[in-house]
Amino acid sequence: MRTAEQYLDKLRSMRPNVYMGGELVQRDDPRLIPGINIMSETFNYAADPRHKDLMVATSHITGQSINRFCHIHQSIDDLLKKQEMTRFLCTRTGGCIQRCMGVDALNALSVITKEMDLRMGTKYHERFTGYLKYFQENDLVGNCAQTDVKGDRSKRPHEQADPDLYLRVVEKREDGIVVRGAKAHNTIAPYADEIIVVPTRMMTEKDAAYAVSFAVPADTEGVYLVTRATAPRTRKHLKVKEYGSADSLTIFDNVFVPWERVFMCGETPFAGFLAMLFALFHRHSYTGCKPATTDVIMGAAALVAEYNGVEKAPHVRDKLADLIAVAELVYGTGIASAVKAKRYASGTYVPDPVFANVARYHAGINVYHEFDILADLAGGLPATLPLEEDFFNPVTGELLHKYIMRNPEITAENQHKCFRMLSDMLCSAHAGVMQVAGIHGGGSPIMEKIAIMGQYDIKSKKAIAKRLAGIED
Amino acid sequence: MRTAEQYLDKLRSMRPNVYMGGELVQRDDPRLIPGINIMSETFNYAADPRHKDLMVATSHITGQSINRFCHIHQSIDDLLKKQEMTRFLCTRTGGCIQRCMGVDALNALSVITKEMDLRMGTKYHERFTGYLKYFQENDLVGNCAQTDVKGDRSKRPHEQADPDLYLRVVEKREDGIVVRGAKAHNTIAPYADEIIVVPTRMMTEKDAAYAVSFAVPADTEGVYLVTRATAPRTRKHLKVKEYGSADSLTIFDNVFVPWERVFMCGETPFAGFLAMLFALFHRHSYTGCKPATTDVIMGAAALVAEYNGVEKAPHVRDKLADLIAVAELVYGTGIASAVKAKRYASGTYVPDPVFANVARYHAGINVYHEFDILADLAGGLPATLPLEEDFFNPVTGELLHKYIMRNPEITAENQHKCFRMLSDMLCSAHAGVMQVAGIHGGGSPIMEKIAIMGQYDIKSKKAIAKRLAGIED
Amino acid sequence: MRTAEQYLDKLRSMRPNVYMGGELVQRDDPRLIPGINIMSETFNYAADPRHKDLMVATSHITGQSINRFCHIHQSIDDLLKKQEMTRFLCTRTGGCIQRCMGVDALNALSVITKEMDLRMGTKYHERFTGYLKYFQENDLVGNCAQTDVKGDRSKRPHEQADPDLYLRVVEKREDGIVVRGAKAHNTIAPYADEIIVVPTRMMTEKDAAYAVSFAVPADTEGVYLVTRATAPRTRKHLKVKEYGSADSLTIFDNVFVPWERVFMCGETPFAGFLAMLFALFHRHSYTGCKPATTDVIMGAAALVAEYNGVEKAPHVRDKLADLIAVAELVYGTGIASAVKAKRYASGTYVPDPVFANVARYHAGINVYHEFDILADLAGGLPATLPLEEDFFNPVTGELLHKYIMRNPEITAENQHKCFRMLSDMLCSAHAGVMQVAGIHGGGSPIMEKIAIMGQYDIKSKKAIAKRLAGIED
Amino acid sequence: MRTAEQYLDKLRSMRPNVYMGGELVQRDDPRLIPGINIMSETFNYAADPRHKDLMVATSHITGQSINRFCHIHQSIDDLLKKQEMTRFLCTRTGGCIQRCMGVDALNALSVITKEMDLRMGTKYHERFTGYLKYFQENDLVGNCAQTDVKGDRSKRPHEQADPDLYLRVVEKREDGIVVRGAKAHNTIAPYADEIIVVPTRMMTEKDAAYAVSFAVPADTEGVYLVTRATAPRTRKHLKVKEYGSADSLTIFDNVFVPWERVFMCGETPFAGFLAMLFALFHRHSYTGCKPATTDVIMGAAALVAEYNGVEKAPHVRDKLADLIAVAELVYGTGIASAVKAKRYASGTYVPDPVFANVARYHAGINVYHEFDILADLAGGLPATLPLEEDFFNPVTGELLHKYIMRNPEITAENQHKCFRMLSDMLCSAHAGVMQVAGIHGGGSPIMEKIAIMGQYDIKSKKAIAKRLAGIED
Repeated sequence: MRTAEQYLDKLRSMRPNVYMGGELVQRDDPRLIPGINIMSETFNYAADPRHKDLMVATSHITGQSINRFCHIHQSIDDLLKKQEMTRFLCTRTGGCIQRCMGVDALNALSVITKEMDLRMGTKYHERFTGYLKYFQENDLVGNCAQTDVKGDRSKRPHEQADPDLYLRVVEKREDGIVVRGAKAHNTIAPYADEIIVVPTRMMTEKDAAYAVSFAVPADTEGVYLVTRATAPRTRKHLKVKEYGSADSLTIFDNVFVPWERVFMCGETPFAGFLAMLFALFHRHSYTGCKPATTDVIMGAAALVAEYNGVEKAPHVRDKLADLIAVAELVYGTGIASAVKAKRYASGTYVPDPVFANVARYHAGINVYHEFDILADLAGGLPATLPLEEDFFNPVTGELLHKYIMRNPEITAENQHKCFRMLSDMLCSAHAGVMQVAGIHGGGSPIMEKIAIMGQYDIKSKKAIAKRLAGIED
Repeated sequence: MRTAEQYLDKLRSMRPNVYMGGELVQRDDPRLIPGINIMSETFNYAADPRHKDLMVATSHITGQSINRFCHIHQSIDDLLKKQEMTRFLCTRTGGCIQRCMGVDALNALSVITKEMDLRMGTKYHERFTGYLKYFQENDLVGNCAQTDVKGDRSKRPHEQADPDLYLRVVEKREDGIVVRGAKAHNTIAPYADEIIVVPTRMMTEKDAAYAVSFAVPADTEGVYLVTRATAPRTRKHLKVKEYGSADSLTIFDNVFVPWERVFMCGETPFAGFLAMLFALFHRHSYTGCKPATTDVIMGAAALVAEYNGVEKAPHVRDKLADLIAVAELVYGTGIASAVKAKRYASGTYVPDPVFANVARYHAGINVYHEFDILADLAGGLPATLPLEEDFFNPVTGELLHKYIMRNPEITAENQHKCFRMLSDMLCSAHAGVMQVAGIHGGGSPIMEKIAIMGQYDIKSKKAIAKRLAGIED
Repeated sequence: MRTAEQYLDKLRSMRPNVYMGGELVQRDDPRLIPGINIMSETFNYAADPRHKDLMVATSHITGQSINRFCHIHQSIDDLLKKQEMTRFLCTRTGGCIQRCMGVDALNALSVITKEMDLRMGTKYHERFTGYLKYFQENDLVGNCAQTDVKGDRSKRPHEQADPDLYLRVVEKREDGIVVRGAKAHNTIAPYADEIIVVPTRMMTEKDAAYAVSFAVPADTEGVYLVTRATAPRTRKHLKVKEYGSADSLTIFDNVFVPWERVFMCGETPFAGFLAMLFALFHRHSYTGCKPATTDVIMGAAALVAEYNGVEKAPHVRDKLADLIAVAELVYGTGIASAVKAKRYASGTYVPDPVFANVARYHAGINVYHEFDILADLAGGLPATLPLEEDFFNPVTGELLHKYIMRNPEITAENQHKCFRMLSDMLCSAHAGVMQVAGIHGGGSPIMEKIAIMGQYDIKSKKAIAKRLAGIED
Repeated sequence: MRTAEQYLDKLRSMRPNVYMGGELVQRDDPRLIPGINIMSETFNYAADPRHKDLMVATSHITGQSINRFCHIHQSIDDLLKKQEMTRFLCTRTGGCIQRCMGVDALNALSVITKEMDLRMGTKYHERFTGYLKYFQENDLVGNCAQTDVKGDRSKRPHEQADPDLYLRVVEKREDGIVVRGAKAHNTIAPYADEIIVVPTRMMTEKDAAYAVSFAVPADTEGVYLVTRATAPRTRKHLKVKEYGSADSLTIFDNVFVPWERVFMCGETPFAGFLAMLFALFHRHSYTGCKPATTDVIMGAAALVAEYNGVEKAPHVRDKLADLIAVAELVYGTGIASAVKAKRYASGTYVPDPVFANVARYHAGINVYHEFDILADLAGGLPATLPLEEDFFNPVTGELLHKYIMRNPEITAENQHKCFRMLSDMLCSAHAGVMQVAGIHGGGSPIMEKIAIMGQYDIKSKKAIAKRLAGIED
């Protein structure tokens, strides 16, 4: 397993293809460091013996110890541990741990390559296993690029005015394929080693060129990572470890992919299945990370209530209980999704889709509600707190420390730290990104409802009603 | 194990002490039959080999096959099966299966009698085990009487103007105790074999006379069961099996209880623990029954949408998905509660309290919302549907059948049956009872919030926030 | 103006055509009395000088004093008074005052007959005015029959398998028309003098036979009123004035209507306009009656909180404030709808449609929520309260009075009365009818959303956004 | 009336006492310009003859034409126009118009100074009228500084460890008073002419030093404006007029106020009344501005739905209707609040408090919900949209324009402009400030609930319930 340092060294050695603010930048650009800091924690905690049980797994192909973020789930317990690890790490970084994307894509591919081989006589699974071995041995960080830019939402891929609005194979060669298109919302991509591409939706026969899945190094020729990075405001005085994230619009401008890295190419009946499977594993990951973001909000809410001296007030306790209910319903239903997992032919355990989807759905519809509760309990100060420097200016500093005092047990400095954090959590660009990601990441609530309705046995429920009504089928 | 017939025979042999509508009635009074019909199903399904795995358990004390409603949970799997059995049976009867009360009380007593013995040197566990053996061997139906009438809500038991407003020991004799007081909302009691009494709350030293638990046959001298029965309207033409329930205010007017049936008498530190434990087991039962009532509502909603010809309409699918989300979040979190159960000294597995409480809470706050969805999709007809007899009157019958037609694929008779059921589900006294029971049964949402806040580790969440804010403890 | 007695005498003199429970019944059938009691109040209060300002208006056609329920709104103040009168009366009867239907239909017809005359050269307005004069002079009670049974919801009227599934003209004669069909959910019809029929929806040219409006006496030959009556349980001991309602499915089996009572016949472009106008006046009425039903719920909630001794508890006050917010948002927005009314060519003031619809919508989506709050604060007793007779039985009466005691300031009798009322409000068939009527009466929430989207100027809102985005049109 | 230029010139002439980011800055600091731009619009529109009716009023003291933001409401119509003006201007600037604070404080003082004179024999009203004349003649911009920093929330002002945690009179002199303390969340203060101070709460006799109200020029000696400014990101290419806001923590460090500017000094019984009155006028202003912010959100939501090609989708229309309902319930109830206004002894019209509070409450509890809807309809792109400069970089610009295409009717540039605006609306620091201000500005939802419960006649509602229950008082 790599160290955080080795990971960063590798990033520095890559071909520059990250664009940000109109410029081509290095992968260790300061704006990317908050995201890289998060990624580093996935190596740090894996190296810490106290967290070994959670962070380290045994590869089913090599028998080696590997970072759990490279592991294919071999049991219900693996799924439970991934969920638990995700919640734990996200409470440490205050939000999305990001590296789940890669492992979720790998798990989906482990299943689908086997299923395609079984039903269509292809040879993808062995090819994929070779790639997985490389991935595990090098302890890589993978982005999963799924969402196409999609153009006109009322048209299928092959019907678009510009055929590139979904990523597609533009050429098949003896040694590989050439692809063109763009994938949106690629968190982690600017500081990932690998980009793993999967389809975004079901494909019809006419969309065959769009039924494609592959992996490339993130700095491959023809790949452009147009990036937006977000993190809370940089501190000058009240230093804390900075965590953040970055997303790219990932453009594939005639990118060559050798066959050994191609995992689907034209198998249209499996495109939607792969899209759904990745989403399913990823939604199960959300049953770990979303409770963690609620933990952070809940902790901040309880803290500011204490600092304001109103921790025992009934309306405060009522709202904290609301937050607990959201967190634990999502986490609990995620546990059920793992416990009711199904083993596929490849040996991979796949979480129960109904439980995973209702859990992710419940998390998604509550994101803004959670911020609402935090803002309600925090009061107006997060929006109007004077800037950090004013607290250290000789004219105003002392006055500001005088007037920020509340509960006399808590120092002015800690009051300041508490509200500085709240200001970042509620009133920064990063806060908005967390909100939007909280709704749409891994699939918007409406997507989960579609997934639920697609898989739920409504007919058996109608049969219950008919029986009670005395209606014979 | 008994048959439904044996159960009914026993009821008929009991001393009449059920009062209803101003009269002393027999236990097979027609108004009680709908509830007895539900109870009978717990015997019928246990006798059906197809349902043996779910319905039948092995006694840990006798090794005999017993009805799962008499079983002490010996494993996580037992808890999962109880939950699954509960959901299954409740979809068959269209609502509360009722018999869970008894098994939940027995499980709580199995734990608490052992804990008391260990910490206070008492001998309750052996006594309880004797009673349990009798209960299992006779396949009894137990009511659990917990909620005292409580008088002035702002006062503790010993502070009440009338000391009987909480049930208490009025005399200790060599051969047993004499108790006085009343317990409210005792579903099933009018057709139960046994009444198991547990405290309703924490008790202080001054409330020692109120820290009492015991079991008596339901027809014991001095016990009055003042009863209210509810069921959907009786059908004259569109016959279906009638299911319903009955609750009693159970009055103990100087009732003698022999020592071998007394399981707590003055051990105040354990009164609140027992109250909480019964509630916990019972809330875990709700993670089975509430999804079932949602199944019934969901099935009826999907059915009427089909009958109206709007099943594919987006707003219909959206609302069905809402119902699914409620059902499966509650059920999924109930599974988590079982999976994270803790084994106590007695060997009994106790569900995780946070998961059980958030699940019951989520069910409780959604009850009226679910009826809202059903009413929304059903339209106004459930409220204005002419009475059953008008559909069979020579003057109006044909006209009514003509004008109830909707989707031409569905017969007028089935349309009628569907709306007749909806009318009962939405616009009967029984509907109101289901709503109120859905909120308050097993503990109102506010009680679950109190339980959650009492057991959740908020401090660790504040530590998460402090760490992110850079605040040192 | 009539007295309540004269109204009842008239009912007794009518031809029996009310069917209930399989029988032809008299209009003073005991099951109809609770509804008739409500209707009587509209006469009683009009005769009471203390309420004259609210209850009595001056006819714009005769200059005579008339019951406001017969009046065409001549000013904003008339609309405000109608709203206020409606709220007042509904708090007295504990729910729907019912007589608003008639006045709402008359107002809609006053507008539409004039508009048709102006644009199509018809002579309806004079004819209608003649009818109105008769209606006002005889102080009549009118039902408005709008909702057709509608058959297959995915088909228009003329496309139905059975053409009668919407009410239609089957014959035009020299002296009038013959109609066939059925109208559903006709509250008040069994004890109304007149039935006023309006279309239920927009009609296309092919639906010309369905674009029909007229009025007939409720006992006209060929009219069948198949009736369902609801009221809280009849009291034997704790007597209160009984209020309730009844709805009929009103079947028109080849009913002859003379031309002087026909107000639309084939003017398809105006069918939807009339449907919408009646709905609009009726939704404005709901801005009066729905706050009243909230007043009743709020009052009951505050009362039971006092009787339980928890009136000052923060969660109680919080929930009462929620109820107040619902009531006053609906009422306030209803006031705005009146204040922003538009005068039409006939001189009638028509409430603002957006305000009226959002107000009715808000009321509709909160109905079950309000019952939820009441049930939450009332506790489980409304569902399990022993029957009235048991409180007066020599064996159980004293015990029940003993154990119902709470706040010692309140007598057992008053506690009983309070919970008896709550039991009827929450756990009776009548409660379910109130809930369903609260959603669907005057148009379901989805109908108001459709009305809102049909009339709101979304384009101007997009222009606001474009301007801020710097997008030029 | 002043021009925007004159207003700005005045700002430039003021003594610098604005601190921001650790520095003393000029009042035309670039970070303050977006806020000043908003203020300028209040002068621009008043000078525009097309908006004269809305923007210009006639002073009741001088008879001169004045900006409505300086006017004391002399009629219901004045209140209606203020509300309408507020909504109009806020749609132009995309958010809070800010200048309402001053006029709301002046109106409150006009009432309270008269009431104090009448009941306590003081001479405040004449003094206030002199100040008002000066304010109107100079067309001033006033901040209202109400919210004290408040220290320990569980203690009253005089009980605080540091007595300055509420602003107080530290010295009374012959020529005036000296005050010390700090007021928080003072929007507009850094570019206002005047700061008007009012108490934040009820005061007891012991808090007499805190019952103080006065006005000072914003650059008075001893006043420190520690400022935080917010605005959407500055544009480099897609230029739009920049609007924003700034808040200060306003510190009064021994500030002298001459008597002619003191409007309350020790009249404790009126401190709470003044606090409430200002809040009431300000909440009525919110019934204008909050619908405007909903208009902006609604317009943006409809626009992005059109640009994505899904404008007719049922779930889109459903959500737009939700937004309309919020906007028009708040606006409509604000109208009712004006229509039911009460004239006080000073001649000032005061809005109805229950309607104003429920309207502001409804706005406050829906703020995050509205952002949720917008984020839901906008999708993930607002969070991941590449920075503006990348769209104009020669390497990536063309590719980004290619891949942002959706509905082919809309140019890439307009798509970009739309999503750039959405990114600012959802994912900027400004967005967070709008959210927090939307909850807490003018009083948090819990404050409105307290105000509602303080003024609502719950007793009359209990009487309704008692009457229906047959309970005699």
